[in-house]
Amino acid sequence: MANFKGHALPGSFFLLFGLWWSVKYPLRHCWKHRQQRNRQKLPAFFSRVDLIEGVLKIFFAFVGIMAEQFVPDGPHARLYNDGWVKLMNWQHSTMYLFFGISGIADVLSVSSLPVPPRLDRFGLSLALFVEGFLFYHHLHGRSMLDSHVHTLLLVPVFGGAACTVLEVFVKENTLLEIIRSSLAILQGSWFYEIGFVLFPLSGPHWDPDLHDNVMFLTMCFCWHYAVALLVVSLNYCVVWWTLNRFSGKPIGDMEIGLRKTTDCTSQKALLQDSEEE
Amino acid sequence: MANFKGHALPGSFFLLFGLWWSVKYPLRHCWKHRQQRNRQKLPAFFSRVDLIEGVLKIFFAFVGIMAEQFVPDGPHARLYNDGWVKLMNWQHSTMYLFFGISGIADVLSVSSLPVPPRLDRFGLSLALFVEGFLFYHHLHGRSMLDSHVHTLLLVPVFGGAACTVLEVFVKENTLLEIIRSSLAILQGSWFYEIGFVLFPLSGPHWDPDLHDNVMFLTMCFCWHYAVALLVVSLNYCVVWWTLNRFSGKPIGDMEIGLRKTTDCTSQKALLQDSEEE
Amino acid sequence: MANFKGHALPGSFFLLFGLWWSVKYPLRHCWKHRQQRNRQKLPAFFSRVDLIEGVLKIFFAFVGIMAEQFVPDGPHARLYNDGWVKLMNWQHSTMYLFFGISGIADVLSVSSLPVPPRLDRFGLSLALFVEGFLFYHHLHGRSMLDSHVHTLLLVPVFGGAACTVLEVFVKENTLLEIIRSSLAILQGSWFYEIGFVLFPLSGPHWDPDLHDNVMFLTMCFCWHYAVALLVVSLNYCVVWWTLNRFSGKPIGDMEIGLRKTTDCTSQKALLQDSEEE
Amino acid sequence: MANFKGHALPGSFFLLFGLWWSVKYPLRHCWKHRQQRNRQKLPAFFSRVDLIEGVLKIFFAFVGIMAEQFVPDGPHARLYNDGWVKLMNWQHSTMYLFFGISGIADVLSVSSLPVPPRLDRFGLSLALFVEGFLFYHHLHGRSMLDSHVHTLLLVPVFGGAACTVLEVFVKENTLLEIIRSSLAILQGSWFYEIGFVLFPLSGPHWDPDLHDNVMFLTMCFCWHYAVALLVVSLNYCVVWWTLNRFSGKPIGDMEIGLRKTTDCTSQKALLQDSEEE
Repeated sequence: MANFKGHALPGSFFLLFGLWWSVKYPLRHCWKHRQQRNRQKLPAFFSRVDLIEGVLKIFFAFVGIMAEQFVPDGPHARLYNDGWVKLMNWQHSTMYLFFGISGIADVLSVSSLPVPPRLDRFGLSLALFVEGFLFYHHLHGRSMLDSHVHTLLLVPVFGGAACTVLEVFVKENTLLEIIRSSLAILQGSWFYEIGFVLFPLSGPHWDPDLHDNVMFLTMCFCWHYAVALLVVSLNYCVVWWTLNRFSGKPIGDMEIGLRKTTDCTSQKALLQDSEEE
Repeated sequence: MANFKGHALPGSFFLLFGLWWSVKYPLRHCWKHRQQRNRQKLPAFFSRVDLIEGVLKIFFAFVGIMAEQFVPDGPHARLYNDGWVKLMNWQHSTMYLFFGISGIADVLSVSSLPVPPRLDRFGLSLALFVEGFLFYHHLHGRSMLDSHVHTLLLVPVFGGAACTVLEVFVKENTLLEIIRSSLAILQGSWFYEIGFVLFPLSGPHWDPDLHDNVMFLTMCFCWHYAVALLVVSLNYCVVWWTLNRFSGKPIGDMEIGLRKTTDCTSQKALLQDSEEE
Repeated sequence: MANFKGHALPGSFFLLFGLWWSVKYPLRHCWKHRQQRNRQKLPAFFSRVDLIEGVLKIFFAFVGIMAEQFVPDGPHARLYNDGWVKLMNWQHSTMYLFFGISGIADVLSVSSLPVPPRLDRFGLSLALFVEGFLFYHHLHGRSMLDSHVHTLLLVPVFGGAACTVLEVFVKENTLLEIIRSSLAILQGSWFYEIGFVLFPLSGPHWDPDLHDNVMFLTMCFCWHYAVALLVVSLNYCVVWWTLNRFSGKPIGDMEIGLRKTTDCTSQKALLQDSEEE
Repeated sequence: MANFKGHALPGSFFLLFGLWWSVKYPLRHCWKHRQQRNRQKLPAFFSRVDLIEGVLKIFFAFVGIMAEQFVPDGPHARLYNDGWVKLMNWQHSTMYLFFGISGIADVLSVSSLPVPPRLDRFGLSLALFVEGFLFYHHLHGRSMLDSHVHTLLLVPVFGGAACTVLEVFVKENTLLEIIRSSLAILQGSWFYEIGFVLFPLSGPHWDPDLHDNVMFLTMCFCWHYAVALLVVSLNYCVVWWTLNRFSGKPIGDMEIGLRKTTDCTSQKALLQDSEEE
């Protein structure tokens, strides 16, 4: 899929997931923050959402594999025929396969089965690592520009993998989850950028050997991340404001009766919580 | 031992250990999960199994060293004779030596001697690190294909070493132990793959300089890991199902008397446990 | 800004911040050490100081961007004009932009908004990482000497980034904060050294291809750090001595009344504290 | 000091410190293990020993600097004289300087001054890092053999630095301290090996471009570490056995009176302790 669509498709997936995460995690964080006095469990809503996310991942991965295999100029599930057949498509299929595995890990983690904790994070981290691993061995013998934009792509890929591995060990760290969201958005938007640079929809082609182009793209990559951070921050604000606006009152009312007796306790819990975080 | 057998032998060892670990650790995890109410210690069965594992490791390491030294075209324990004698065999012997040391660390850790805690993990990590270190300096001046398949081998080797070092600091993390099992299986199956690729039992030889071969093998490596993950997951399911089926009843019966009084406590312990994990 | 001033300006900023941090963190540490008996919160003074720091960062970043854009030979906010315009200045502007973002993160962290904890450290770490990332891709095709002094600069930059990332996870670790201060001072003084070496104010120019120059600068870099450590240590001593001299008495007086009853408790708290640290 | 003595001198220092640490840390570990019931502080003996260690380090560093500067063909404290004077000696002096700083950090850590905790570990880690940093930039333009043996030296140097940095964050981990001891012994013995290989006292010179020599030395390096581990283990056993033999009785007697009442408590403390470790 060495064309604009072939980069826009995975880009859209990552943008979608990144934007979704940048809403989900602040939502969860704020919910916990509000509920910390009684320390009740997260409502079933959140695990149902995680389930849907896992199923969607499996579905997207399946669609991706099918698309890579059965596009007109694809390998049509043949691997060897007097030489390897369309290895590029097979490699992309492999990447989708591991995102499918990550989806299965998500579903298992939400289920009531006794899977090891944080399996979903390991699954995601593995999928990103495999993606980066295959991309890294993908770059052999390309032009300077082509190779450089794909190398830059490795930053959000491996950064995301590292961030997700950390989440296996550091639990309930909102910052890590938000960084992961921003890196997913960065990856998505950079896929689009690669598409625009290597397969421009209109206008002249980029000179693949001009060093200034490389310098500009390195800088442009940083701007993409600045925008990703901005988007994540805006989502965080909107979530917080919405939650305060629409669910603030009733919860406040419910608590009025309790407030007098639980005041000290709650304050202590608050302090403790902020220290733990 | 630059032939198919020379790769099948270590491959079998790693496959064996990987498969065994993928049974042992889920077994231990499930046992703990079931027993968490009374939080009693692991039964002596588990430490006896660890002892046997350590002794087996020492035995295999000894066999490996002897085989490398005294095969017909081996160095027969001579190191220098107008030039270094069969350094390849000596390097393999060194690798086996460190796995032997890891076996000794295992045995010491199980014994009642006051060794530092987690010595067994350090021993294993060191053995894997030395294996990777020697392989890394092994690759000088080989064909692209040969060098590439051995470089890919470094991923499970150093990945396993990193994973085991983490286990020194992060205790009782089932996920890490399962990842280690899957990496051992990957290493074992990849040793076989190397054997098949470099010394094909039948059919034509692989072109050592064709870039498509390298691309295919990179992807094939990922498939190996997908299969390793599948095997580990199946073993996990089988262990869990078997434990529930055969030992479920009696433990349940024993607890009926206690359940009423300990219900709150146990539930709290459960929650706490899952958080700690 | 490839001249002496262009290196002296950022150097001064880093020196300023490094020196300031080497006063702020010991001050905070000593304050906590003194106050640990009643474990009261840090006085508002400290958060006001953090606020000012954040605002200053934003201000400096703004000034930096403006200077890079609107110096006589700058790009004047034009990016493309028959080829990329003054990419060097744009890259420097990007660096300043991320320090500005770090300043915003500082301000948000101090505010009463429910931002994720340790956001300020993430912001600083990101700014340093982006600085290192752009510098790293900056070095293409320069002389040995030029490339080497800039490579050495990456040590405090990435070292500082790593140190600040660690601070996200390891809380209240005075040692990390002091190391970060010393690395900031090192970065500042090394910026000056680069200026002196590449654009000597007087005397002969340095031979850019003499290997002895590279060897000397490598060593000189270590001396810079030794001096930075000395400065940080002196500041630590001065802060401690001043705090003991001027505020020692009154606090001691206040406590006399309490001492008899709280002695055991305080001692226990002291022990606990030193263990936690 | 490019001769046998120039390598034997630092080698002896590292061997000395490595051997000493491999006695000190088991001693401290065993002492704590024995004393855990009453959880009293370590006796003053241990901090006095740390003080002596720090003072010795400062002394050795001073001697090293003086030797490097004022040997007959040394720079005699002149740095520039129509070109850099004897930069090799200056670089070695710089290395010693940082070990001196590490010694000062040791002394400060033992003192009653309010230094940040674990300053001694940071000092040692920094000294090792600077040593590795300078060695790494030392290797330019040497023969394959020369360059390889010095590259291998970087393994214990950076390994030791990493291990000591970990000690800053992971407290009271005997395993880390023992690994550090073994790496120091490895470094010491490898310095001797470098001396023997590059400046053989008798017999023919090593062929600097024979690949087999490089392969042998890589393997030999692993054997050195196996021996270092053996030495450390033996010291551990001897310390343990001696402590049990000579101080076992009296402590046992003292406790007899307390045993009945404290049995449950002590057992609990023991369990807790082993978990913490």
